[in-house]
Formats: sequence, structure tokens, C-alpha cells
Amino acid sequence: MKSWKVLNKTPVISVEPWFKISREEVELPSGRVVSDFYRVVMPEFAMVVPVTDSGELVTVRGYRHGPRKICLGVPGGLIESHETPLAAAQRELLEETGYRANEWKSLGAFTVDSNRQGGTAHFFLARKLDQVEQKVDDDAESLRIEVMKPEQFLGSIASEEISTLAAVSAIALALAHGLK
Amino acid sequence: MKSWKVLNKTPVISVEPWFKISREEVELPSGRVVSDFYRVVMPEFAMVVPVTDSGELVTVRGYRHGPRKICLGVPGGLIESHETPLAAAQRELLEETGYRANEWKSLGAFTVDSNRQGGTAHFFLARKLDQVEQKVDDDAESLRIEVMKPEQFLGSIASEEISTLAAVSAIALALAHGLK
Repeated sequence: MKSWKVLNKTPVISVEPWFKISREEVELPSGRVVSDFYRVVMPEFAMVVPVTDSGELVTVRGYRHGPRKICLGVPGGLIESHETPLAAAQRELLEETGYRANEWKSLGAFTVDSNRQGGTAHFFLARKLDQVEQKVDDDAESLRIEVMKPEQFLGSIASEEISTLAAVSAIALALAHGLK
Repeated sequence: MKSWKVLNKTPVISVEPWFKISREEVELPSGRVVSDFYRVVMPEFAMVVPVTDSGELVTVRGYRHGPRKICLGVPGGLIESHETPLAAAQRELLEETGYRANEWKSLGAFTVDSNRQGGTAHFFLARKLDQVEQKVDDDAESLRIEVMKPEQFLGSIASEEISTLAAVSAIALALAHGLK
């Protein structure tokens, strides 16, 4: 089981900070050379699963332009260049819900696209919540907070209210770990 | 809570069948117009969580060029144009593991990138497994089958053996549903 070797890399298009595409010439372990394997590098982002003391999830419902619909999800967003993933998670939780959490646990970091990169998702479990201020809406993202039991969240998958991968992954991971 | 309106759409680059990028002019609910919101459309793919009668997971370990490392994951791959998501899941399970499953359940379909699209992941739980043939390796994808308990899979997150989002999502979702 060996890695591919990158023989050459040619920039194709770059739209900072959103994505940067390059065309790679790669050599497979068999020796075969593929001349046009595309790499799509995207930013890192943090997603938070906020859990109340009674074990309920703090979710956010809002319009998402990827699936072009109103979706149920969790707080999260891009990591700024000066931030650690945890600091971004804490900022996003506060901005999008008005909550601060006194207990944080990493649930892991994952490459979004197994072939092309596509960004890195950092997941966090946030517990011991305090509502410290009102959430801040901006005109690109207007969210409604909904606190619900995990079973209700999972039930919403069937009705297609949860449509984005990072949101469902974050909560499924938290549940797989038993919210601990 | 309203949708964004797409006022204009300009093609930017298309590398079929891998990705197709366009620049959209969008109007936000506030009335503000954003002239350069990029959409990155990628293919649909299917991921399978194969579970043995004793409740163990059939995982695959192999090199992934996105994270540029050898990762633990699950069988899966792109949906061909003539296929349903389920048919693709069944084909990928057979090709990558040599197993056929007699019980299939959808775990949902999710847009990978909540802002830009980035493809759609279809997840399936596969039970009542029979090993019907040998797995087929190609030179771009050489995989080793590893059958393990769910706790062992979750434990591998900490050691960063699981590095790709769709793989961890698939299994976490199956576990959140209690592998049922």
C-alpha cells in the first residue's frame, strides 16, 4: 500500500480565499502516470455540536446556498487566518447562537474530499452552555435556533431537513461517542 | 427565512466529469447583491457501511490522495450516469470487498459543501453479508479489508487513521442509528 507521487503541479485557477485548483501529474504505485489529476484546495472550517445539560442539541435552521434550501444544521464556519480551530468554534457558537460553552472536546478533523482535498472540517462537542448574549445575524446568514432531542434530529434526516454533510457528520459523531 | 435569488450565472471552468465551476450573481434576502459567489458542482457518490451478523464493520484501508495518506474508510465511489445510488453502492461494495449484502437501508443523502454544492453523498447500511468473490484492485486504488468492532473504528479517529469526512460520516451515522 503505497502513496502516489506528485511529479508536477500546474496552477489552474485561484479564487482566494475560497478555492485554489491545480492540475497534478501523478505516478501511481504501479508506475502508471496520470497527467491530469485535479486538486481543489478549500479552507478549513469548524463545526460545533452544542449539548445542553439535559442532553438536548442546540441546532440552527437557515438557508444554505449549496443545496439551495432551508436546512437544519449546527453552528460553524470558516477558521480565520489568525485563529486556532477551537477559537473559531467558540466564536461561531457565540455569533450564531449567543451561547458560550465551558467544556470543549475535539471530535476530530477530516479532509472533506478524499481525492481532491476540498477543505478540512474540525468538529467539536460543546457542553456546560451559558446564554451570554443575543445571536448576531448578518444578511448572508439568518439562523433560527432550535433545541431538540437527538432522536428528533435523526428523524429530520428522513424528511430531508438536514441536507449538508458537515452538519449531519458533526451530530452523528457526537452521538456515536454517546455525547461524552 | 428566505432563499437567495440567483440573478446571473457565468461559467468559469468545467473539467467533466469531475467539477464544474460557475460564478453567480446572487441577491440576498436583505436586497444586497453579491456579484461573485462561486458554485462548485461535483459528482454524486455512494458510501456503504457493511455490518456483519455479529455487528462488526467491514472497513477498507488504502491511500487517499486528498489527505495524501493511507486512511481507514468504507467502500464507496462515484455513481455512474446509468446507475441509481443504491446500484452504485452495491457495485462498489462488491468491487472493493467481494461482499454482497442481502439487506440494504438508506441512511440519507447530503450536499457536501453547504455553500458551493461540492457533490452529493448517499449513505447506505448493508447487512446480511456474503463473500461471493475476491475484491478487485485497480492501480489507482489498492485496498485492504479490515473487519473491526465499532469502538475500534471510533478509537482510530484519535490516531488520525480516519482522515476523510465521508468515511467517518457514514459510520457515525450508522452508529447513531444503532446499526439498525
